[in-house]
Amino acid sequence: MPAPEPTIVPTLSWMGDRLDVIDQTVLPGRFEVRSLRSSEDVAAAIRSLTVRGAPAIGVCGAFAVVLALRERAIGTPAEARSALDQAVREVGTARPTATNLAWAVQRVATAARAGDSVEEIRKLALAEALAIRDSDIESCRRIGDAGRAELAGMTRLLTHCNTGRLATAGIGTALGIVHAKAAAGEPVEVLACESRPLLQGARLTAWELAEAGIPVTLIADGAAGAALAAGRVQAVVVGCDRVARNGDTANKIGTYALAVLAKAHDVPFYVAGPMTTFDVATEGGDGIVIEQRSGDEVRHAGGGAVAPHVAVWNPAFDVTPAELITAFITDAAVLRPPYRESIAAGMAEAARLGLRAP
Amino acid sequence: MPAPEPTIVPTLSWMGDRLDVIDQTVLPGRFEVRSLRSSEDVAAAIRSLTVRGAPAIGVCGAFAVVLALRERAIGTPAEARSALDQAVREVGTARPTATNLAWAVQRVATAARAGDSVEEIRKLALAEALAIRDSDIESCRRIGDAGRAELAGMTRLLTHCNTGRLATAGIGTALGIVHAKAAAGEPVEVLACESRPLLQGARLTAWELAEAGIPVTLIADGAAGAALAAGRVQAVVVGCDRVARNGDTANKIGTYALAVLAKAHDVPFYVAGPMTTFDVATEGGDGIVIEQRSGDEVRHAGGGAVAPHVAVWNPAFDVTPAELITAFITDAAVLRPPYRESIAAGMAEAARLGLRAP
Repeated sequence: MPAPEPTIVPTLSWMGDRLDVIDQTVLPGRFEVRSLRSSEDVAAAIRSLTVRGAPAIGVCGAFAVVLALRERAIGTPAEARSALDQAVREVGTARPTATNLAWAVQRVATAARAGDSVEEIRKLALAEALAIRDSDIESCRRIGDAGRAELAGMTRLLTHCNTGRLATAGIGTALGIVHAKAAAGEPVEVLACESRPLLQGARLTAWELAEAGIPVTLIADGAAGAALAAGRVQAVVVGCDRVARNGDTANKIGTYALAVLAKAHDVPFYVAGPMTTFDVATEGGDGIVIEQRSGDEVRHAGGGAVAPHVAVWNPAFDVTPAELITAFITDAAVLRPPYRESIAAGMAEAARLGLRAP
Repeated sequence: MPAPEPTIVPTLSWMGDRLDVIDQTVLPGRFEVRSLRSSEDVAAAIRSLTVRGAPAIGVCGAFAVVLALRERAIGTPAEARSALDQAVREVGTARPTATNLAWAVQRVATAARAGDSVEEIRKLALAEALAIRDSDIESCRRIGDAGRAELAGMTRLLTHCNTGRLATAGIGTALGIVHAKAAAGEPVEVLACESRPLLQGARLTAWELAEAGIPVTLIADGAAGAALAAGRVQAVVVGCDRVARNGDTANKIGTYALAVLAKAHDVPFYVAGPMTTFDVATEGGDGIVIEQRSGDEVRHAGGGAVAPHVAVWNPAFDVTPAELITAFITDAAVLRPPYRESIAAGMAEAARLGLRAP
């Protein structure tokens, strides 16, 4: 029997007239919930990383469209459709790399456009947003189950950034596999890279796993190579923000180094995520837009005393070439090389299953 | 004509009765000099990283022996020799990984033991410590010149940690090559890894290069792979804390990942350091003791709000296997594979040249 889940405040909660989200910029020092009451609120929360994680920002984007349609000025179906267009433009692009955000916003807008009245448009949008949220929860569950099977017997996992409850509406993607193993009573322990510059590993993954009672050891990103060389890692498991048609994968900066190191040590390197993270319109990694963020994110380590005027290069993501990836663990199937074929098959399977997690 | 050197306060200055060092724990926010008046002061400054960098702590260790002999209780040659033994034990082991520290302390103690009187013992110790300091300055100059020749035409260099003026008594080792290029009027720009957990790259290298007017761009350690993939790096140049007889090299945690990534991109990976960093009594990397430091160094990023109770694994160094190293740039020669032979030849050449930089 799996152990009961601990009581947990969801990362995002639709409250009927607003979206409540855990403010991830102040964790673990403070636990605060922010109420987002407009699509602008949601876009700002996504840009500021108040809410982050590719699936979570997709679900938030879906509800942003719902909120955009609640504005009082909307009186006609034409005005509602104009609000949909605006939400697609403004929320869908709040962060450029994750494909889930644009996908979810577009999907809610498309569903809503079928309505004949403002009321119907609003109803269809809400139904689609709720379906996307529920689908994300289900997709996380499916990824967790598939990961448990794929990583059977592997107990010492290394991960990067945060891909758990805080990154999704469910138990997570890469970290969802860890939660699934723990819930099934299987031994599992995690080496968490701190994930500079924004320390999602140190602030969020370490906190989330400690809250869940799962053994976690934090390391500086630069220590991952030594951990692999010391035999402390049986598998590397990471999430993804966008996967191209050929399997090239954009994920948190530092992921690529882990993939190269895993290969050098013959340790399997898994990428976990819902099929909606796969962008088959993008042929390969070269076509993925990489978000460049403020140099202050790097400068501000150590309380602002770090190199205040020095130039900084701060890409938020890097691209891991498909050939370094052992398999993708998705909500549709475990995808193995050659990826062009298995990703196409996964997309078909996701459609057959009706999956629409962001 | 090389440009004149900017006026610079030396990292360490022997003041006749004390050793003054720049406090590197408060840079770049504050510039403060600490006066070390006893061998215990020096050992504490080395342990706390007030002074760091393998050659610099070697020179400091040398003067610690001089200070140990100045204690008032010493009245006989036997008491002086006992103080020497104690300094070798206590200062020589203040940090375990760098070979230069134990080497320099032992070397001063051995030179001093030849004295017949307390006065003579003190005189011999001081002469040896000053010779070690001067030799470090000269070794840095030789490494800089050899590196300029070896890296001719390479302008975009990636480095890790701090290996410059702040890490030596001279212009530095890996960063000494950068200073030498700049002093010769050659174009050079540096991508500096911030070097978590203690941010020597962000705090010291960025500060030192900016002070010297050399273009520097700071990156999170995890961004090095993306920088290499983007073609931003023509060579990786790092320092070393201990090199084994076969060429395996211990250096700041994160170095190994850079070596693996450089190899994956066919970018040359150079290790710079004086021959005294080579420890031919250690056969290979397995024999190098890796210092484990407090987990709080990792936890304290972001002002203490990071994962306060989570377990941390914090090795200060990792080992890069010799086969990933393109060449060693030393004060005796540029050493190329096979390293067992070239290192032995380099040791012989260093002895012939009378090099004794720590």
